[in-house]
Amino acid sequence: MAGDIPSFENLIVFPPSYYKMMKLNLETKIKVKLIDPKEKTVLTEEEDGKQETIKYDSLILATGAGSLVPPIKGRDKDGVFCLRTIEDGKDIQGAMKETKKAVVVGAGFIGLEMAHAFAEKNIETTVVELLPCTLSAVLDKDMAGLVQGEIEKRGVRIIVGRGVDEILGDSRATGVLVAGEEIPADLILLACGVRSRNELAAKAGIGIGVTKAIKVNPRMGTSMPDIYAAGDCVESKDMITGRPTLSQLGTTAVRQGKVAGINAAGGYATFPGVLSSAVTRIFGFEVGATGLTEFRAGRTGLKTVSGKITAKTKPEYFPGGKDIKVKILAEPEFGRVIGGQIVGGEDVAQRINMISLAIQKGVTVWELAKADTCYAPPVADTWEPVALASELAGLKTRR
Amino acid sequence: MAGDIPSFENLIVFPPSYYKMMKLNLETKIKVKLIDPKEKTVLTEEEDGKQETIKYDSLILATGAGSLVPPIKGRDKDGVFCLRTIEDGKDIQGAMKETKKAVVVGAGFIGLEMAHAFAEKNIETTVVELLPCTLSAVLDKDMAGLVQGEIEKRGVRIIVGRGVDEILGDSRATGVLVAGEEIPADLILLACGVRSRNELAAKAGIGIGVTKAIKVNPRMGTSMPDIYAAGDCVESKDMITGRPTLSQLGTTAVRQGKVAGINAAGGYATFPGVLSSAVTRIFGFEVGATGLTEFRAGRTGLKTVSGKITAKTKPEYFPGGKDIKVKILAEPEFGRVIGGQIVGGEDVAQRINMISLAIQKGVTVWELAKADTCYAPPVADTWEPVALASELAGLKTRR
Repeated sequence: MAGDIPSFENLIVFPPSYYKMMKLNLETKIKVKLIDPKEKTVLTEEEDGKQETIKYDSLILATGAGSLVPPIKGRDKDGVFCLRTIEDGKDIQGAMKETKKAVVVGAGFIGLEMAHAFAEKNIETTVVELLPCTLSAVLDKDMAGLVQGEIEKRGVRIIVGRGVDEILGDSRATGVLVAGEEIPADLILLACGVRSRNELAAKAGIGIGVTKAIKVNPRMGTSMPDIYAAGDCVESKDMITGRPTLSQLGTTAVRQGKVAGINAAGGYATFPGVLSSAVTRIFGFEVGATGLTEFRAGRTGLKTVSGKITAKTKPEYFPGGKDIKVKILAEPEFGRVIGGQIVGGEDVAQRINMISLAIQKGVTVWELAKADTCYAPPVADTWEPVALASELAGLKTRR
Repeated sequence: MAGDIPSFENLIVFPPSYYKMMKLNLETKIKVKLIDPKEKTVLTEEEDGKQETIKYDSLILATGAGSLVPPIKGRDKDGVFCLRTIEDGKDIQGAMKETKKAVVVGAGFIGLEMAHAFAEKNIETTVVELLPCTLSAVLDKDMAGLVQGEIEKRGVRIIVGRGVDEILGDSRATGVLVAGEEIPADLILLACGVRSRNELAAKAGIGIGVTKAIKVNPRMGTSMPDIYAAGDCVESKDMITGRPTLSQLGTTAVRQGKVAGINAAGGYATFPGVLSSAVTRIFGFEVGATGLTEFRAGRTGLKTVSGKITAKTKPEYFPGGKDIKVKILAEPEFGRVIGGQIVGGEDVAQRINMISLAIQKGVTVWELAKADTCYAPPVADTWEPVALASELAGLKTRR
């Protein structure tokens, strides 16, 4: 949407020819109406209404998720969009050509990435977030404030802690009402997250979890024999708390898909759970996070200590280094790392991956502080910021 | 030397004012002649010959290392340089102005970085390496071949498996003789590694290890009470093999220095050993490595399996992604990761850090294959190349 990728068609990673080569029979434009787990059949329906019953030995549900549309008054007006599919993208891109002002409802990854795209196209943009900060699912308030400041510097207005009370206009949206203020807009994007598509599974009697997504075991098996599920439609297990959580990310989906596929084909594989490591690049900087935030830790009764440091991605004396802020969360008793948040000009993603591995392996902040990191002036300084932030967190533990 | 950093003075990270602020009494241009561990004194000598005996409670040796000059005939001629100090750098930079052709002896990090600097300044450069491949301390032959190919593409000639038999010329070097071939050069750089400065320690009766560097315990204490040592002058312990090794890197030095400092000041800290994670950026690409190579593993009796993958740093559909080749080494019995080597256009350093942490924590290739990595089109693909290479290595284990 920002114009980096020349065409929507580029986004299709596996074209039909790939499936042919792999001898996979890909049937599109066919709806599965019903699953019969006893007979091990699915009932399909083509666009012209033609129905067919297909037998299966193993079945994998990858029904994904759909955009969550909040019950805002006026949400059905023209000019109000969600972004989930390529079709959605094309519709929004079409509308953007006529757009001078946009409002984005929701300051999650999609909301902020779209705010970036709008800004790139010189559309005056306001982001409205009901929760107290941007990216609240993955960032603490201090780090989120940093993100907000960076975005505001680029001329995008961000309103947090307020909801959109109404979408204004007749048949066509002309703006939104936020805490009594009318914010004019030609285009309104609802980016309020997604909801697992669990209807087909529920109808078949497959167990649904507390998160309203399909319950699965570590082999990605559902409550029904020989029916597996993977991706945005399933409930995941948080690696740190062991509790059910939603991890509706592409990375989680492909990893779960692999495990489901191996098991459905008669092999044996397990999925270790999720940390929901995520990253984005917007307005020329990167934001990444893994594990728990202070808020999410608190909700599961976990206390936290944190270490935070501002550093450069290269040594001071080497030109071109960018600011990077690293925050490490640990539990105070044993110093185990339970979360990491980074905002910086570059090199955020791989640092998040390192922290993610640390969490997965029960590494303590003292161990991470002593990591054998590498250095060369054009790429990294002698002291790795992740190690330094870990050391600072270590000073606050009870040890 | 390549011109990225405007002035040599920029390289001085801590100016005299810093020491003053920290209330550290920094005495330069004073030589320590002798250590008397029984009396706990050092004998110093100023430039004018004035001697003084200073008492210590704790002493830290940070005598570093000096350039290793191989016994090549003609090594004393004008135009032959080593690069270790800022003074060396200034001398070489001065000579470069008059240089049309250069020969670099040694294809380690310094040798290749200087070849890059020479090439940047349009100096016709030949690198001569006695060992069978470039960066042989940290890369296997296959990965080193990739590096060599990339450098040769940029017009630098690399000769491996051959030594320099003689430096030619009268008082001034005019070239080198390599396997009967005369290679003309105005400037010859000897980049053959470093040798620990252990003389002062040895004279004081401090234990020296098999690597000819100062032996230390995990607290960085030497064989003498209250005398610590850190940096290029000490022998380190390889985290994987537990054996003595040399890790003469800036990162190792600062980490050891911190531990030595804490203990010397009456605190308690330990150094976990080294993996010698290293990285560089030359000719527009990055090379990084951590842990053991196949050769070094073999020398300690460790068998290895490996997984190797070529990928992109961003998804195929996102413009600007660069090639990256990742190699993961594991021991075949339990699949523990013992080494990683990466050559790529960007994002190498932090991946090395992740592999380094994996080695340090005894992570297996199957665990690393399931790491919860993050993804966003502008920064990383859904499948992390490190995870994929680990999976491939896992297929070759005995499990």
